[in-house]
Amino acid sequence: MEEYLLHILVLGAAGMIGRKLVERLVRDGRLGDAAIDKMTLQDVVAPHVPDSVGVPVTTVAGDFAVPGFAEKLVAERPDVIFHLAAIVSGEAELDFDKGYRINLDGTRMLLDAIRAVGDGYKPRVVFTSSIAVFGAPFPDAITDEFFHTPLLSYGTQKAIGELLLADYSRRGFLDGIGIRLPTICIRPGAPNKAASGFFSNILREPLAGHEAVLPVSEDVRHWHASPRSAVGFLIHAGTMDLAAVGPRRNLTMPGLSATVGEQIAALRRVAGDKVVARIRREPDPFIIGIVDGWPRNFAATRARELGFTTVEKTFDDIIRIHIEDELRGNFVG
Amino acid sequence: MEEYLLHILVLGAAGMIGRKLVERLVRDGRLGDAAIDKMTLQDVVAPHVPDSVGVPVTTVAGDFAVPGFAEKLVAERPDVIFHLAAIVSGEAELDFDKGYRINLDGTRMLLDAIRAVGDGYKPRVVFTSSIAVFGAPFPDAITDEFFHTPLLSYGTQKAIGELLLADYSRRGFLDGIGIRLPTICIRPGAPNKAASGFFSNILREPLAGHEAVLPVSEDVRHWHASPRSAVGFLIHAGTMDLAAVGPRRNLTMPGLSATVGEQIAALRRVAGDKVVARIRREPDPFIIGIVDGWPRNFAATRARELGFTTVEKTFDDIIRIHIEDELRGNFVG
Repeated sequence: MEEYLLHILVLGAAGMIGRKLVERLVRDGRLGDAAIDKMTLQDVVAPHVPDSVGVPVTTVAGDFAVPGFAEKLVAERPDVIFHLAAIVSGEAELDFDKGYRINLDGTRMLLDAIRAVGDGYKPRVVFTSSIAVFGAPFPDAITDEFFHTPLLSYGTQKAIGELLLADYSRRGFLDGIGIRLPTICIRPGAPNKAASGFFSNILREPLAGHEAVLPVSEDVRHWHASPRSAVGFLIHAGTMDLAAVGPRRNLTMPGLSATVGEQIAALRRVAGDKVVARIRREPDPFIIGIVDGWPRNFAATRARELGFTTVEKTFDDIIRIHIEDELRGNFVG
Repeated sequence: MEEYLLHILVLGAAGMIGRKLVERLVRDGRLGDAAIDKMTLQDVVAPHVPDSVGVPVTTVAGDFAVPGFAEKLVAERPDVIFHLAAIVSGEAELDFDKGYRINLDGTRMLLDAIRAVGDGYKPRVVFTSSIAVFGAPFPDAITDEFFHTPLLSYGTQKAIGELLLADYSRRGFLDGIGIRLPTICIRPGAPNKAASGFFSNILREPLAGHEAVLPVSEDVRHWHASPRSAVGFLIHAGTMDLAAVGPRRNLTMPGLSATVGEQIAALRRVAGDKVVARIRREPDPFIIGIVDGWPRNFAATRARELGFTTVEKTFDDIIRIHIEDELRGNFVG
């Protein structure tokens, strides 16, 4: 029996989640039931191609919001498109035009380029949205039917992307699914300057033997998922039966709701007091103010019913996954 | 004491609501506390200028989604902008590109043109949105925090307009307020081909001595407001203190939830059996199917708290308002 062969396009393949998704796809050599025949990886800088790739990989470096660029990317009719390209929240807030150009215009250009192919072309489009589509005040646990009142331009642009994805899907131009990722924890790499960075910094840095600054109080609650879970969500979104989803194409992904105090208690259980002692409390009114408007907890009922699951069951698992995947099993005790 | 003088710009001034708003503004000669100094009326066709106008009125005929057009409209820095211009739902569904070009691109061009003026220019922008931002299935009464999953491109474009309006307001480029109008009943003029037309047709036509077709069952429930109330909402949105509104700038307007049977009972009370006898039942599966996805009832709590009120208290009032405002007090009994 001849197997169906997939061409996969990843936009934003050089980002943290993009790299991990590509590694997973290359390792599996397949997406769901189908073998991967070809991969195209796009980002503003040339994405890294993992070693020992069994399938042809093309990398494309360039700004995907330049007119004509998206048309070239979809000209070869990729079967599945993972759209992870975005200007992140802080930058979209500082540079209004750039945020709208990439996050709104770029996304629309992609959807329009797909539509322009016509001739029965109807790819699966997995769009990474964000819990930034929600803005305070919130109920204790945000339900799947809670409205979108973003308090950042980034969240506005993601909410618009969700609406476009749903409408283009409804019109039959593509088969879209939008997934709102929790804050990824533990985010690997150097500490970044995102206001949310401390959620990862206070775990990753102490595990590496370095001091980390905690700028908020321990009772701050937030919504987390491991990088491994995020990749799992993307894979499931790329393979699931979308007929079961219906017209409501955008879903809040499952995660763990934890306070900073619970994060630290988990670190203590997994890595011990000496590691925890590397966390230095240094309240930052600016970050406290920003974090105050963020979601704390979600029901995520619909996504769970549709088969999205986190790998981790506890925050201890989130720390263990980081030690396994990023530290080869070792931390600085 | 010198009085502050207002320049008002109305986009979509030739439409049904636009005309009624302009008539009201001209009659009042003021908006809230301020006298009107100047009015600019735009539409694709030259808007009608009411008789006995006490203030200078400029009319502009042209497509507001043509690049450069919005810049010209805001160059004179109007203080209050009523943005009623739109491709209606049926047409936006039939002509995908046209709907997105006018309803999304046009709205964005307007907001960007305002932003480009800079120099402290921050007009009040009243955006007419629609209950089409909601898509079935619904709770019994849709609350103010219910999410937007439009089932039409028109509703998608309006939901995107709302998000842009809120973000541009939050960033301080303008002072926006979005109001989701109920279905206007009784819509004056000739029967139109909108799927919602029958809600007005079955009242207006019999009152004028003509037969009307009812294509759905009498238990269909929907959300209505009179044209007089719609104009009242616009005036209130143009004058209210927006500091009290905060970042959630888009509101579902109050209305009356009524079944078709209740509409007909009101017609009987106000105009008698002979008028009601002009309604002919002719079920239309196509319209039944469309109407099935429409909202039936809203809480509209927040708008009421913020001072938005309907003129009518009962459906009888809706019929009386039509007889007063459109039929000079007489109907064909």
